[in-house]
Amino acid sequence: MQKSFIPVNRILLGPGPSNVNPKVLEALSRATLGHLDPQFIELMDEIKSSLKYTFKTENDATFVLSGPGSLGMEACLVNMIEPGNKVVVCTGGYFANRMIQIVEKIGGNPVPVKETWGRAIDPQKLEDSLKTNRDAKIVAFVHAETSTGALSNIKELSEIAHRHNCLVVADVVTSLGATDVMVDEWNLDAVYSCSQKGLACVAGMSPVTFSEKAVHHIKNRKIPVQSWFNDLNLLLSYWGGQKRMYHHTAPSNQYYGLHEALFILKEEGIENAWRRHKENSAKLISKLKDELDLEPIVPNGERIPHLQAIKVPDGVDEAKIRIELLKQHNLEIGAGLGELAGKIWRIGLMGYNSNDKIIDYLIGSLKKVFSEK
Amino acid sequence: MQKSFIPVNRILLGPGPSNVNPKVLEALSRATLGHLDPQFIELMDEIKSSLKYTFKTENDATFVLSGPGSLGMEACLVNMIEPGNKVVVCTGGYFANRMIQIVEKIGGNPVPVKETWGRAIDPQKLEDSLKTNRDAKIVAFVHAETSTGALSNIKELSEIAHRHNCLVVADVVTSLGATDVMVDEWNLDAVYSCSQKGLACVAGMSPVTFSEKAVHHIKNRKIPVQSWFNDLNLLLSYWGGQKRMYHHTAPSNQYYGLHEALFILKEEGIENAWRRHKENSAKLISKLKDELDLEPIVPNGERIPHLQAIKVPDGVDEAKIRIELLKQHNLEIGAGLGELAGKIWRIGLMGYNSNDKIIDYLIGSLKKVFSEK
Repeated sequence: MQKSFIPVNRILLGPGPSNVNPKVLEALSRATLGHLDPQFIELMDEIKSSLKYTFKTENDATFVLSGPGSLGMEACLVNMIEPGNKVVVCTGGYFANRMIQIVEKIGGNPVPVKETWGRAIDPQKLEDSLKTNRDAKIVAFVHAETSTGALSNIKELSEIAHRHNCLVVADVVTSLGATDVMVDEWNLDAVYSCSQKGLACVAGMSPVTFSEKAVHHIKNRKIPVQSWFNDLNLLLSYWGGQKRMYHHTAPSNQYYGLHEALFILKEEGIENAWRRHKENSAKLISKLKDELDLEPIVPNGERIPHLQAIKVPDGVDEAKIRIELLKQHNLEIGAGLGELAGKIWRIGLMGYNSNDKIIDYLIGSLKKVFSEK
Repeated sequence: MQKSFIPVNRILLGPGPSNVNPKVLEALSRATLGHLDPQFIELMDEIKSSLKYTFKTENDATFVLSGPGSLGMEACLVNMIEPGNKVVVCTGGYFANRMIQIVEKIGGNPVPVKETWGRAIDPQKLEDSLKTNRDAKIVAFVHAETSTGALSNIKELSEIAHRHNCLVVADVVTSLGATDVMVDEWNLDAVYSCSQKGLACVAGMSPVTFSEKAVHHIKNRKIPVQSWFNDLNLLLSYWGGQKRMYHHTAPSNQYYGLHEALFILKEEGIENAWRRHKENSAKLISKLKDELDLEPIVPNGERIPHLQAIKVPDGVDEAKIRIELLKQHNLEIGAGLGELAGKIWRIGLMGYNSNDKIIDYLIGSLKKVFSEK
């Protein structure tokens, strides 16, 4: 006979989800509201305002999609790209490759700018590609490549793209709330993220923001957006305007969680959160080196502060280490994906988990598991 | 200064969301799991098994999408339809009209079979349409049209469609868990629902099920599914198969809620739940008539048992009544949509709310508000 599902608590130190702040978990259980309730409209307005703070933007088209970050990726691309459009996609990992797949599914024509997995995108390669692909109108890239641990300088990539009269689609799924993301200053046009990493919220929501230029671009498409659920024209009428037009039934309890998570982030101050992630990451890297002789595959200066891709030492069974950490210590770290499968572990210190106690627990657990090999 | 968001409790008697069972709300707050955790795989398997029970199906392709019912609508259509395909859509309301919009966005060619709003679809009209549209391969319809309160005989519609060699897409958003839905017996091919009505769960998830014929149809498309997020081929590898292929980061806390809601439904027994909804609806309709002289617009025999479209009496300001119910009694009922805007109220007794106490509270509140006119 089936029973209620009571999960064993885990410490989530993989690439996401990360552990959720208990205050956020508590918020999820509050009484459900209808999506047309005046209280709910207030909630939406406050989320919008907090997201502007988090994205560092004044974009009015800033809101949350009712689905995970991968829905956000699809939404940004399907709105910005028309069938036949050439799109330059900078890729050095699994998630940027997914962008290419989505561009293809939409009927766009993706042109990859390829980088070695585990390295930041070389801006010169984008420059070179745009010189030959003069008919490209969109450039897409990932800020923090979750699959490799590499952080690209998207401020510079965006500058190059705009100099070539392109609009940019930026993935800040793994960076938002944990490391510097400045949408307006960096001139990013269509930007998506997720709820379950730097924001220390539950999975299943995708914060997005669109520049005025992006909204204008979408409103002037020749072919209507092929998705109804993700159509920005419909979503903007739902999230703003004089009269809110019903679109979908928003998951109000999820939104309570996001509201609380963003409130906690504002209380800390986003610059303080960025600093905390950087400092704890530096501690983690030095302890991994000093106490376990483990090292990131990404060169210093190109690393995501809060997500390290750690090289599996020769002769070590990477899966066994992960399984023992989970079994003996209720601690989850991530495996490699794609080209890096079997070669790395991915260790995230994100949001609520970015603190000394967690670092010590991780190092202690790793030592025990390694000593049993 | 912004604060935590604490909603005032509401009694939700509109077309959905309905109030969530407190046990489900509690389940949402349990510790977050990673989407690759062995415990999470167990959770997915149990949800799958409970959904088969709920849909009355043996379909292996039965699972939940990580987005609301309207995402489910788009997912079923985008998988089943290729650009250029002719699709017969039976429509007598707002949500069936949305199907038409989505078919158009996908590049399909929708042929509407039009019914009067507030009436069940006349099967003869479908028969006639299929006789002239012999190249149609898909028929789509809504079981319980949330915008009008009309319940169609989709068993019969499905029979007609299959006799004409069509596959069927069925919307059971408002019917699942509250009134008879029998996917296998009725031969439905691609079916979607939502979490926040009959299932008494929070909004934001869309249970779906696909027949073997539907899966075969999708696997043999000439043009790949245009959506990555909704591509059944990818979703099936995530939800089953020998090796689970990572797709998106599933919202584990949402899934806890769904697991609990389905567990509660199984404990009651789905046939008992259907009976409860019918009995309470009969009580509600007779009390509305006897004590307030209010009547459904849908003829007896064509009504959704648990969602009544009630005619606004002449001279009554429908918005004022709704606003006063909300303000004075924390009670939400729904307004009309589309053609029926201003003409009806929509009163739902769904899931956790389908009980005597709620009926009495509603009738009492309506009386007070009407007496103050």
